Amino acid sequence: MNHIQWTKNRLKIIDQSKLPGQVKYLYLDDLEDCYRSIISMQVRGAPLIGVVGAFGLALLAISIKTDSIKEFLEKIEKGAAYLSDARPTAYNLRYCVGLVLKAIKAQKSIITMKEQAINEALTIMMTEEENSKKIGEFGESLLEDGDTVLTHCNAGALATIKYGTALAPIRIAVERGKCLYVIATETRPGQQGARLTAWELFADGIPVTVIADTAVGYLMSKEMIRKVIVGADRITSDGYVFNKIGTYQIAVLAAEHRIPFYVAAPSSTFDLKTAHNEVVIEEREAKEIAIVGRKRIVPKGVRVFNPVFDGTPPTFVEAIITEKGIILPPYVESIRKTIPDRI
Amino acid sequence: MNHIQWTKNRLKIIDQSKLPGQVKYLYLDDLEDCYRSIISMQVRGAPLIGVVGAFGLALLAISIKTDSIKEFLEKIEKGAAYLSDARPTAYNLRYCVGLVLKAIKAQKSIITMKEQAINEALTIMMTEEENSKKIGEFGESLLEDGDTVLTHCNAGALATIKYGTALAPIRIAVERGKCLYVIATETRPGQQGARLTAWELFADGIPVTVIADTAVGYLMSKEMIRKVIVGADRITSDGYVFNKIGTYQIAVLAAEHRIPFYVAAPSSTFDLKTAHNEVVIEEREAKEIAIVGRKRIVPKGVRVFNPVFDGTPPTFVEAIITEKGIILPPYVESIRKTIPDRI
Repeated sequence: MNHIQWTKNRLKIIDQSKLPGQVKYLYLDDLEDCYRSIISMQVRGAPLIGVVGAFGLALLAISIKTDSIKEFLEKIEKGAAYLSDARPTAYNLRYCVGLVLKAIKAQKSIITMKEQAINEALTIMMTEEENSKKIGEFGESLLEDGDTVLTHCNAGALATIKYGTALAPIRIAVERGKCLYVIATETRPGQQGARLTAWELFADGIPVTVIADTAVGYLMSKEMIRKVIVGADRITSDGYVFNKIGTYQIAVLAAEHRIPFYVAAPSSTFDLKTAHNEVVIEEREAKEIAIVGRKRIVPKGVRVFNPVFDGTPPTFVEAIITEKGIILPPYVESIRKTIPDRI
Repeated sequence: MNHIQWTKNRLKIIDQSKLPGQVKYLYLDDLEDCYRSIISMQVRGAPLIGVVGAFGLALLAISIKTDSIKEFLEKIEKGAAYLSDARPTAYNLRYCVGLVLKAIKAQKSIITMKEQAINEALTIMMTEEENSKKIGEFGESLLEDGDTVLTHCNAGALATIKYGTALAPIRIAVERGKCLYVIATETRPGQQGARLTAWELFADGIPVTVIADTAVGYLMSKEMIRKVIVGADRITSDGYVFNKIGTYQIAVLAAEHRIPFYVAAPSSTFDLKTAHNEVVIEEREAKEIAIVGRKRIVPKGVRVFNPVFDGTPPTFVEAIITEKGIILPPYVESIRKTIPDRI
């Protein structure tokens, strides 16, 4: 699956909002294209929007026509702030945009700034691909032959580069001969589990069953789930995990049923500077809940509240799988030891 | 709101599968019409399908053309079994069909059997209406001015006759001047919360906000929910509450956040004979999850598991509100004392 590709100064992506009905590719030619693809959720998944953000800034860099470094950097700073704010919760976006900004600022001429912007974005993309494989290799040790693993939302190839985060350990375990079964929650309102996780695992031949978000507790009570693995959009220094709405309640249910709850994320997801109670939870439009396809399911005039992320306290998290290894509690210390303080 | 009406030997109902987009009425003329309206979920909600089942058997009774009591009763027994099995989980259906069967069997002539079948169905309908009001009157004492109450699925007027079960205490509290806010979960896969609870509360001018099923834990963690009230499809003698899929996990989350979790149900919902581990959990078609409106959200070929009820252990239930009063733990004793052993 090649769903993101840099070719001839444009970024080719798959439009995830059209899946699974339609496999449609989009070409992103400038910062505005990248910004729009992120806010409209044509691309989504924390690591992937980080990469698209990085290319967005690089595309801005190569498009600026000026000989003034001051003017160049002003435009770059403005573009970086604009891109970073496209979505508030995922940390990877601002982190990766920040890396490109730093790479640009380290240069002395506009020509090398433009070169390094592209190089840095390419490096980020390659690094995320390597990281997703490493997450898979570390994480697969946690999975046993025959396990049924529940995952929420999509933290797979579509959310990242290649292996995914939550799905990487599953893919590597299957590559190594383990037999696994995946339960994908529908994940309302975006339905990323039903639409995307099911789509990519089915394509890979990994057994996957979709359930309604309401059925998680029931399956756990019937001992139909052995492990939970989810991705993350931001992990704070004290181990709070911000991820798709619904993650927190799955973590509570897993604890109630003594099912291990794992989080898989690259170090670009770790925000070592923000306190967990300061993380902004994105609220999206009512229509994402009220209208499915063309069908209005909430009567007109009725209020809808649509927060799309939540925070899971570290007490519910059995381990965090990163490309640098598996991080165990107590998280304040283990995160500090494992994840470098950056930018 | 008059969504069920017996008139000139036919039952007029609102087609709930078309709400909120379309307010369409259906006329049920015979047992088969009633059966089909139940299995297709044009009527749903445990007390309501009990009433429709009762009229289904009454309609069969008045349609049978024979002078042989033996033949008459054979057809009635067969019809009662057929109707009772239309949906396996809700107890009210088999209970109300059983009441009509008993009323028929108590008669000595086919003419009075036919008369009593209709009379019994009408009595059941009136009793359920009275019961829903009594549930509201008992339950409203549990609600305080300013409370935000979460409810799941639809246990309102549409699920019952008139006041509802879970929504009855809310309606009576509002009638008595309390200011309440309702959070309605979407309730996938059937979306009864978004489609039906929102529709009827909005029509009544009671403030209601729809959330995705994934947001329950988040709202509880943010102290945005003070109480939970749900209906029930079957309550066993030891206090296990069978209700719409997702109820169990809401109960677990309520316990985690120390939020009282109330169940409201008439005594027709109590099954004093079946052990909780013998209750059949209905599994419905994959397409209820895979297709919304005309939009396919699960890729073709991917498995779907669609259980539509779950069981909540009595330890999670703060109280059960019935038309006979509020039942408190320990439930084995309090249910035995409050609910008569019947049929």
